[in-house]
Amino acid sequence: MIDHPAFPAEAWCLRETSLDLDTLRQTESLFALSNGHIGWRGNLDEGEPHGLPGCYLNGCHERWPIRYPEFGYGLPEYGQSVINVTNGKLIRLLVDDEPFDVRYGDLRSHERVLDFRAGTLARVAEWASPAGRAVRVRSTRLASLTQRAVAAICYEVEPLDAPADFVVQSELVANELPQGEGAGDPRGWHMPQSALRGESHAGADGRALLVHSTQLSNLRVAAAFAHVVAGPPGTRQETESTADVARLTVSASLKPGQRLSVVKFVGYGWSSVRSLPALRDQVQAALMTAAQTGWPGLLAQQQAFLAEFWHRADVELDGDPELQQAIRFGLFHVLQAGARAETQPIPAKGLTGPGYDGHAFWDTEMFVLPMLTLTHPDAAADELRWRHSTLAQARDRARQLGLRGAAFPWRTIDGTESSAYWPAGIAAFHVNAGIADAVIRYVDVTGDARFEADPGLELLVETARLWQSLGHHATGGEFRIDGVTGPDEYSAVADNNVYTNLMAQHNLQAAADAARRHWAQASALGVSSAEIAAWQRAAAAMAIPYDDQLGVHPQAEGFTAHEVWDFARTSAAQYPLLRHFPYFDLYRKQVVKQADLVLAMQHRPEAFTAAQKARNFAYYERLTVRDSSLSAATQSVIAAEIGQLDLAYDYLAESALIDLDDTERNVADGLHLAALAGAWTAAVAGFGGLRSRYGKLTFAPRLPAPIARLTFTVSFRGQQLRTEVTATTATYALEAGPPVVVGHHGREFTLTAGKPVTLDLPPAAAQPRLSQPAGREPVSRSGAGPQPGQGSAAHGPAGPNVPTGFSPRP
Amino acid sequence: MIDHPAFPAEAWCLRETSLDLDTLRQTESLFALSNGHIGWRGNLDEGEPHGLPGCYLNGCHERWPIRYPEFGYGLPEYGQSVINVTNGKLIRLLVDDEPFDVRYGDLRSHERVLDFRAGTLARVAEWASPAGRAVRVRSTRLASLTQRAVAAICYEVEPLDAPADFVVQSELVANELPQGEGAGDPRGWHMPQSALRGESHAGADGRALLVHSTQLSNLRVAAAFAHVVAGPPGTRQETESTADVARLTVSASLKPGQRLSVVKFVGYGWSSVRSLPALRDQVQAALMTAAQTGWPGLLAQQQAFLAEFWHRADVELDGDPELQQAIRFGLFHVLQAGARAETQPIPAKGLTGPGYDGHAFWDTEMFVLPMLTLTHPDAAADELRWRHSTLAQARDRARQLGLRGAAFPWRTIDGTESSAYWPAGIAAFHVNAGIADAVIRYVDVTGDARFEADPGLELLVETARLWQSLGHHATGGEFRIDGVTGPDEYSAVADNNVYTNLMAQHNLQAAADAARRHWAQASALGVSSAEIAAWQRAAAAMAIPYDDQLGVHPQAEGFTAHEVWDFARTSAAQYPLLRHFPYFDLYRKQVVKQADLVLAMQHRPEAFTAAQKARNFAYYERLTVRDSSLSAATQSVIAAEIGQLDLAYDYLAESALIDLDDTERNVADGLHLAALAGAWTAAVAGFGGLRSRYGKLTFAPRLPAPIARLTFTVSFRGQQLRTEVTATTATYALEAGPPVVVGHHGREFTLTAGKPVTLDLPPAAAQPRLSQPAGREPVSRSGAGPQPGQGSAAHGPAGPNVPTGFSPRP
Repeated sequence: MIDHPAFPAEAWCLRETSLDLDTLRQTESLFALSNGHIGWRGNLDEGEPHGLPGCYLNGCHERWPIRYPEFGYGLPEYGQSVINVTNGKLIRLLVDDEPFDVRYGDLRSHERVLDFRAGTLARVAEWASPAGRAVRVRSTRLASLTQRAVAAICYEVEPLDAPADFVVQSELVANELPQGEGAGDPRGWHMPQSALRGESHAGADGRALLVHSTQLSNLRVAAAFAHVVAGPPGTRQETESTADVARLTVSASLKPGQRLSVVKFVGYGWSSVRSLPALRDQVQAALMTAAQTGWPGLLAQQQAFLAEFWHRADVELDGDPELQQAIRFGLFHVLQAGARAETQPIPAKGLTGPGYDGHAFWDTEMFVLPMLTLTHPDAAADELRWRHSTLAQARDRARQLGLRGAAFPWRTIDGTESSAYWPAGIAAFHVNAGIADAVIRYVDVTGDARFEADPGLELLVETARLWQSLGHHATGGEFRIDGVTGPDEYSAVADNNVYTNLMAQHNLQAAADAARRHWAQASALGVSSAEIAAWQRAAAAMAIPYDDQLGVHPQAEGFTAHEVWDFARTSAAQYPLLRHFPYFDLYRKQVVKQADLVLAMQHRPEAFTAAQKARNFAYYERLTVRDSSLSAATQSVIAAEIGQLDLAYDYLAESALIDLDDTERNVADGLHLAALAGAWTAAVAGFGGLRSRYGKLTFAPRLPAPIARLTFTVSFRGQQLRTEVTATTATYALEAGPPVVVGHHGREFTLTAGKPVTLDLPPAAAQPRLSQPAGREPVSRSGAGPQPGQGSAAHGPAGPNVPTGFSPRP
Repeated sequence: MIDHPAFPAEAWCLRETSLDLDTLRQTESLFALSNGHIGWRGNLDEGEPHGLPGCYLNGCHERWPIRYPEFGYGLPEYGQSVINVTNGKLIRLLVDDEPFDVRYGDLRSHERVLDFRAGTLARVAEWASPAGRAVRVRSTRLASLTQRAVAAICYEVEPLDAPADFVVQSELVANELPQGEGAGDPRGWHMPQSALRGESHAGADGRALLVHSTQLSNLRVAAAFAHVVAGPPGTRQETESTADVARLTVSASLKPGQRLSVVKFVGYGWSSVRSLPALRDQVQAALMTAAQTGWPGLLAQQQAFLAEFWHRADVELDGDPELQQAIRFGLFHVLQAGARAETQPIPAKGLTGPGYDGHAFWDTEMFVLPMLTLTHPDAAADELRWRHSTLAQARDRARQLGLRGAAFPWRTIDGTESSAYWPAGIAAFHVNAGIADAVIRYVDVTGDARFEADPGLELLVETARLWQSLGHHATGGEFRIDGVTGPDEYSAVADNNVYTNLMAQHNLQAAADAARRHWAQASALGVSSAEIAAWQRAAAAMAIPYDDQLGVHPQAEGFTAHEVWDFARTSAAQYPLLRHFPYFDLYRKQVVKQADLVLAMQHRPEAFTAAQKARNFAYYERLTVRDSSLSAATQSVIAAEIGQLDLAYDYLAESALIDLDDTERNVADGLHLAALAGAWTAAVAGFGGLRSRYGKLTFAPRLPAPIARLTFTVSFRGQQLRTEVTATTATYALEAGPPVVVGHHGREFTLTAGKPVTLDLPPAAAQPRLSQPAGREPVSRSGAGPQPGQGSAAHGPAGPNVPTGFSPRP
């Protein structure tokens, strides 16, 4: 848990006003900077103390053989782990020969500010050395959203009360070893300490370059720096390099009022194919551009990029300043993760920490992309292009599993499957429908026909082929998909999971439609009319089990006949359940880790009647323990849809505050991007009631009492559509472009640019609050129940000694 | 494959007439000696060449931490592996300073004979040294069935054509390392080379003792020898010992006609609790008794023990000498494994090799004990007492899994679970019903009320409690057991597996009955009337799914709706399927590794109508690939019952010849005791039609055409009942004791001692032969189809590089 008072609820930044060394590892995640290619954890400039040092390059990983206690055909042979690459953010300081280290001397004041509009992490510290010399250190960093290969730091020092000698050492350090607490790197458990091998180093005149390569994944990584130093006359510089360290040393004697300023530009690159000279030149060129842009130029570009983003994406939420901050914090971090990922994945934790080994999961397509598609669609397209670039691996995997088409991995960095526990990983074929759904959604929202014809179509076709071969028509004709795992990780390997089948149905139909629209391209992929007809037959005959007796959809065939988990006899300390009960017991009982059938209702809303939605939601609400971060947002959306507005509000807050409150107790390993993006979805699709399907946006806004006003903007076919909701009305405004047809609580109207439309909200019927498993109720935000930050005691810790890197996901 | 001509079909022995070094590892398993406590593989006396050296003490194991790539609550932390203990069978020979090694010089003749009546392995070799000195070596070994801690060897050498100097080195060797081929010990893959630590050694006057301890399991093991040497005057002896080697060296100069004879008595013991002096004295005392008995005395005891066994247990089978030999071979080895196991398990491979790490499985209760109960019931009782002795571990395990009662392990040596793949191991709760069934069967056949009251009742009660907590009454009242794995290892974690539910039903009812019969003891175990009533309610309401449309029982709920495996597109090289297809695909389709529903029909015959049995058998016959050695015998029994006599005959042969023909290609790691015992069951319960339930024996004999006559004897309530079947009649004879009521093809009669009854067999209707998956038909023994030994090419090799020790069981 992170103590709240350290973070005042400010609308546009996350500010820390005192430094708590015990939560350093957590705050390093919260204050991480990234542009989707480079990730720098919020480590202190001087490197120590640290929770866990981390510099990441998206996709740059090491691999290692997975050892299984029992053989199983088709189990992945290699694991992958994101690696801590060359640390370019290190700037050490000596004051009269004493190192600036907050563990010694007197830290008179401390502030870190992550500014969502500036795109910077700024730090100001006033410190007195053990000898009593007082100094002020200011540093501001950014990972450039406009210059993908570049990060930069402006580092300034000044004496406060007396003259002093200053030495600033600005470094690149490879093979940095974590110290103290951080030495217990969760990945060490299964990834042997695998050092980067030095390939080349050079340094002179404030510039330097280090090139290394990984041992098993055979990647090459280059890091370089250049500096602009400004100090009083007599300031001296010296540059040196060895295989693992490059260093610029600046020394100066300063009087009070004088200042030494070091601007550090850092360039990064990695490649699996490019030669050492090619990679070296690429990084040097990026660095040259950054130096020419200069520090003020980089700051200005960053601000402009973010101004454009917030214009397209901002959510205003009056009545809950903490939530307002949390939602912008989430938007900012999701943007950071996706903005310049380009040909690489968006990992579950972005580039904020080593959690889950830096792997990407289905979270990206089903939780992160819905937000990016409607706010920053280019990043969504890039992510899908990355998936498309891994089609060869997915086709190989399908072949290995005896299937056709493509079988995308449950967890991966390089596109190959890296899940070592097949029932909860490899068998979760729904990941493929999630990718298809993201394609459908992106094309639907953007109208990007070129994307559909090229990477989109192939993704739809190859996933449709997978479903076609994975299912079969039973004697009665119905198309069954047996023995697969749905989203809920407390069930596995069941027949006809409703979410999976509905998503597969959508996938098959969309592939058929897209193939017809792009017949030439489809033919080139070998699609025939017969194949299209088979997809449509399968889609039309898809088995969707229903429990007539209970009047609800079973999550999968037979689910509702299972014993209900004994919640009354489960103590708070026994959550998350997977740490205290065997899989066999969780799998065979009615207990739900995360939204599954409820997620199906979010993404296939037309497949359920309103009455079914209400009954289903109430049924699963009693069974869902939210031991996963992928649940509250979905529950929020459907709770809002069925009129449980206070419940929706509580779930929205749970999702939005997951990292700021550290409710899962593992923010130390990185942020939960899916939950952060999910909070946006809860606001927009929940309280805004936004659904986007079949080329149309429909809204059904309705606010809980504590929220006086909600505004949000979405991008639709290149236009910005802004919605403002109050307790009684909704106002829709189109910025520019041709008119669009919009739905509002079931009725349609045409919205014209510059002519906002205000409509009344239908009155909401009061409902009794639905119940959850005992002890797993969300924290009530409207006053009743425990306050935020206390209630999360119900979220059991993952346990300090449990490796979180490659373990099941709580 | 072992070449057949090397083993002439002799009725009472297995004779090898030439030595094939390439199949040494296989023949070492076939020629293994054991008494259930000590196991000596059939290694050549001189130790080299060998396939795999092996001396085992039942239960003596090392443990090692299991490492999982992903965490799972409740997964076993430690694996266990049987260890190769101190080698006591080693006798090296030097002839004129040249070592007797069959790889050098000229092996003029070789014979090994495993004699089923003498209980010995005899070897005669005539060998000329590279220098041309010809000698005859005779050795005869036994593992004493009457003196549990003792094995012995009579070793004799003589020169054949000229005088020679002989040196015989009789040794105890600890920490023996396999050489050459054998170095690829499959266990090495996961068990770190774990040496025995020397604790004590002493040796003088032809006697010596070595004591060692294991490193992680903390067991102490002692081995000792004593000798009787007879040679011409001038024969000299010397005894020495070090930590890992004790050696008696005998030297003599012999002329043709003279002979040097060394009788070696070896005593063994191990303990987890006894002190070094106590264990040392125990072994020395056993050795003293053996020496006093002397070699002829040990031979005589051995022969007498076996005469008694064959009197009780022999099966005669006229018309198929090969099968006659194979069945006796199997009976002999099963007896060896169980005779003196006493407080230890009967491992799946007995003590014939390190396969499956030396673990015991449910095979023991469900395949081995049915034979032992009817032929050597004391061994069956001992095995169940061993299970009873592990109740503490099984209770702990149940508690850990959130269940009540006892959860016995899928695979174990010391009683704790050692299965690292939970869907096919830990979830196979039917193992508990198997133990209960063995108790019920033993009590039923022997009438041993004392056994029932003491260990029997507690086993029944604790397993009934497990079922009661594992299942639940659904809304409609029916008692469901969801999410468990039945016998078929190509399915896992399904609801209401029919075998499991029927066996659990029997278990619950039997516990209720036994608790009522032994009320005082049951009360002491905390059993109340309410608990008994709950067991009976569960049993009465047990869910037994039935597919009305197909008119068959699904193996588990939903099974018959699954896609049928595409056998037509599966090549012979793709068997066993588990080596070529992922579990997820096997689990979700209709393909059966081994009898499951068919096994239910064998053990709960009264739960099915005759018509259901015929339809079910035909249905599953088309789906069953027999990638397990636990299938053919069961298929034989039910094929015989429904009148498919030729098919029953083929399956009987497949089961009986599994090791002699090495059809599974892994006899190198040890014999398949369950299949060998299963062959007996196929003869007696299949062609004899014997069922023993509720205190009654019923027969329904019928022979396939090639078998002219079948006789078998079973022990029933202390009496021997001999049955002789011909093509047209069955004759029942009771040796002594009170009359018994016997069933014959549905009619009952009273059989009186000394008054055999001969009855006609009802005519059998000819039936079209049922079909199996393409390429998986059993070898036809009546002429059509491939000959034995060729057809087994269809049994895919396990793959030479695949560790068989701790891998899934083909």
